[in-house]
Amino acid sequence: MSNSVSTAISRVDPEQVLVRGYNLADLIGRYSFGDVVYLLLAGDLPSRSEGKMIEAILVACAEHSIDAPSIHVARTVASCGVPTQQAISAGIGAIGDYHGGAGEACAKLLQEAVHERRETPPTEVATDIIAGYRRSGRRLPGFGHRFHTPVDPRARKLLQLSDRWHISAPHVALARAIEDTLRTDTGRALPLNVDGALAAIMSDMGLDWRLGKSLFIIARSAGLSAHVHEELLVGKPLKFAGRSEIEYIGPPERSLPEAQ
Amino acid sequence: MSNSVSTAISRVDPEQVLVRGYNLADLIGRYSFGDVVYLLLAGDLPSRSEGKMIEAILVACAEHSIDAPSIHVARTVASCGVPTQQAISAGIGAIGDYHGGAGEACAKLLQEAVHERRETPPTEVATDIIAGYRRSGRRLPGFGHRFHTPVDPRARKLLQLSDRWHISAPHVALARAIEDTLRTDTGRALPLNVDGALAAIMSDMGLDWRLGKSLFIIARSAGLSAHVHEELLVGKPLKFAGRSEIEYIGPPERSLPEAQ
Amino acid sequence: MSNSVSTAISRVDPEQVLVRGYNLADLIGRYSFGDVVYLLLAGDLPSRSEGKMIEAILVACAEHSIDAPSIHVARTVASCGVPTQQAISAGIGAIGDYHGGAGEACAKLLQEAVHERRETPPTEVATDIIAGYRRSGRRLPGFGHRFHTPVDPRARKLLQLSDRWHISAPHVALARAIEDTLRTDTGRALPLNVDGALAAIMSDMGLDWRLGKSLFIIARSAGLSAHVHEELLVGKPLKFAGRSEIEYIGPPERSLPEAQ
Amino acid sequence: MSNSVSTAISRVDPEQVLVRGYNLADLIGRYSFGDVVYLLLAGDLPSRSEGKMIEAILVACAEHSIDAPSIHVARTVASCGVPTQQAISAGIGAIGDYHGGAGEACAKLLQEAVHERRETPPTEVATDIIAGYRRSGRRLPGFGHRFHTPVDPRARKLLQLSDRWHISAPHVALARAIEDTLRTDTGRALPLNVDGALAAIMSDMGLDWRLGKSLFIIARSAGLSAHVHEELLVGKPLKFAGRSEIEYIGPPERSLPEAQ
Repeated sequence: MSNSVSTAISRVDPEQVLVRGYNLADLIGRYSFGDVVYLLLAGDLPSRSEGKMIEAILVACAEHSIDAPSIHVARTVASCGVPTQQAISAGIGAIGDYHGGAGEACAKLLQEAVHERRETPPTEVATDIIAGYRRSGRRLPGFGHRFHTPVDPRARKLLQLSDRWHISAPHVALARAIEDTLRTDTGRALPLNVDGALAAIMSDMGLDWRLGKSLFIIARSAGLSAHVHEELLVGKPLKFAGRSEIEYIGPPERSLPEAQ
Repeated sequence: MSNSVSTAISRVDPEQVLVRGYNLADLIGRYSFGDVVYLLLAGDLPSRSEGKMIEAILVACAEHSIDAPSIHVARTVASCGVPTQQAISAGIGAIGDYHGGAGEACAKLLQEAVHERRETPPTEVATDIIAGYRRSGRRLPGFGHRFHTPVDPRARKLLQLSDRWHISAPHVALARAIEDTLRTDTGRALPLNVDGALAAIMSDMGLDWRLGKSLFIIARSAGLSAHVHEELLVGKPLKFAGRSEIEYIGPPERSLPEAQ
Repeated sequence: MSNSVSTAISRVDPEQVLVRGYNLADLIGRYSFGDVVYLLLAGDLPSRSEGKMIEAILVACAEHSIDAPSIHVARTVASCGVPTQQAISAGIGAIGDYHGGAGEACAKLLQEAVHERRETPPTEVATDIIAGYRRSGRRLPGFGHRFHTPVDPRARKLLQLSDRWHISAPHVALARAIEDTLRTDTGRALPLNVDGALAAIMSDMGLDWRLGKSLFIIARSAGLSAHVHEELLVGKPLKFAGRSEIEYIGPPERSLPEAQ
Repeated sequence: MSNSVSTAISRVDPEQVLVRGYNLADLIGRYSFGDVVYLLLAGDLPSRSEGKMIEAILVACAEHSIDAPSIHVARTVASCGVPTQQAISAGIGAIGDYHGGAGEACAKLLQEAVHERRETPPTEVATDIIAGYRRSGRRLPGFGHRFHTPVDPRARKLLQLSDRWHISAPHVALARAIEDTLRTDTGRALPLNVDGALAAIMSDMGLDWRLGKSLFIIARSAGLSAHVHEELLVGKPLKFAGRSEIEYIGPPERSLPEAQ
């Protein structure tokens, strides 16, 4: 009962590691991590703008709050006497359809609509999508945020960069048409949140919607690492499960250094 | 049974996310993911060189092979009919002391030795460390590689960059002293592998040794994402557990584009 | 952002633990684990036959083979240098829709059909179900086994006991009607496998279909524990990922002791 | 890079599953789950008393409270939009050295002491063990309970049964000697808790101390299943992470039925 399996991702020789055909050692120091994430997920090196865009997305999703379920789970597990990787692993397991998963759902929605209705004006497509969700009683994934209202500052920044770097195309356009239609229809703003921005932009960079959660996971593994480290260093065993208040004891708000 | 918990990592307000005191939206597009990883893990922004070094480390560890246990586990779990995050979560759980964990062990060794024997010449410290491991019968973590012999090309590249960017300091020096002493003693090369290079360099950047596995996990979450995606798209259910042969069907070896 | 949550499962006082209203200390030694599993999942104590039936199901699913993906994953993770719980946790994560998950899917199918078509003869319902699956091109969950042909000995034994203990009712009847119709239609046997038997019998005991995977997980945690222990004791680090051949080195086939 | 692996646990043929040499189908309905857990973990069938003892241990550890970190983690993950197995998997990952892990540590302690100091009176061994822990500043695993004071009702019941069924031997004797010495020394009761009782009794049944966490995991997978099911059915997405109050809404305290 043994099988041969095949992969188009990498090949390892004693003297080199090939990633999508490129020598990994040549990528180190010359290409950004965002470039290599794109290479791994899309199969080819990105344009310079796309690589920077991936980096921007990773930064935007790297950390949010100790109140996010993935972080909460990772810290609780870390407080039970386990090694680092197990706490991070449990936290990533919490990145489900209701937490960090809206990006995947929103990207699916945008990619299917753009694919199937290429010739239809975005506003018309947007109206149909909203009507469909309204009928089904489900929430439109990627729009609105329970905490960041009226606007999710991370989404706004990502969309600015996507425009500036000429990445925004039909998927971002459709996402904005949905945003506009929602505002007109309901009289209140329900703007793209960080998941929705990620979804629209990754779609315009040609990434399969099934990678929506993956981008979020790669990014959030950084925040998870910081929290697990903090918990292992200064947390008290078993004291995390019932936590209710969160106190921030880090540096006060500060400005970024001038030059960089 | 509720508790207040405290964190120095982030604070979330409706209009902004503060990460170590900085407004996350201002970091997006202006700082690399490597910069933000360092900020999250070390508490402060890195120097320009250090941020580039983190990116280089993340690239070096992003992917190795379908034969690596973490990738193998993630693909096997993905073939069982589960969502993306669960397969990635299981793969990260395989990053234990024997796989991806040598970086943490090696960083601990280097940091403790440099801390305690600041005044002793590296060669003397190296001799004592090797003798200690020999007595205990354990393997020295971070040196030698079962597959990449005589040299791990990822380690060599990382150390070149660490020298060029003036990051190499006492920990890299001690690692090299160990490498030299091993060669003299045993007559054969047992050079730093990618885990050992990561360990020495992160130590010279001031990162706590407990973060050794975390850096590897952040990096490898990219390779895991690519493999889980490939398995979900083209793998056959349940066919992965007993795989023995691996066939590479990606692009043939190719050169990187000239300008970038 | 704190909430009150409610549960109908247990309450803990300093001097006692109440499980579904009963004092846990009074259950110990007087009720079987199968009784308590039923109490936990269904909310009330089972009849004597039902408690024995749960025990029989747990025994039937406790272990299958090192070739099962969940066991394979747990042993691979165990070989990477992690603690017991992490290897078991990863193995349980592999119990997805394609492995150990057919019980849940089959129970859903049976419970919905019995609920909606209470007055229709089982043969007619069976014919419609088979036709529906044929149209959709999906496999009927719970019938046939890639390895145990023509019959899954565990399923046969469970169904015998379910009949003998007067548990078999509409759901087992419908499952058998499907089995018969498949045989007549296709000319070949595609009998209930262990997942299908579990599904039909748990349904006749009034357990919600969403518990199908749970029963399998509780049972299989025993096999996982044995395999992880064996790997930690005698396995070689990192040698499991590429395993192809499996050699059985346990006791040769033997008979059960006479009296018990 | 493929390997042959060997196992003494099971062998699968098309017409039968052998577990430790016995035909699994013959075990179903005739042996309890506790018997089969022992068979899997110890390699041979238990005596009748030992099988009942395993069942009693599984019942004692099956469920405690929504406040236990493993349950808390599983429910939080379940509230994030993931399948059953992922929430249970995460909960099991929380069964670390500080939660559910004292059994393993205590069993190690007892087995090593009994093995090495077979000829020394238990009271003397107990005194030395306590002195050793006192010097190292660590807590003695398996004694005392933060919530169940002065006595853990589950431990008391397990020890009664272990005596009644003639299982108690040197390990239980040593555990009791430690308990007595602690009381004499400190003037306050620090009795065996459920982890300590599990440890002492499993040791007297010949089970390797490395299986201490496994027994707890097998048992607790039942409670985890009930809680994950409750969360998926009636929980509100993402509302679990910050929970502080727990309200019990199950049946009021009730007596067990007379005859069974």
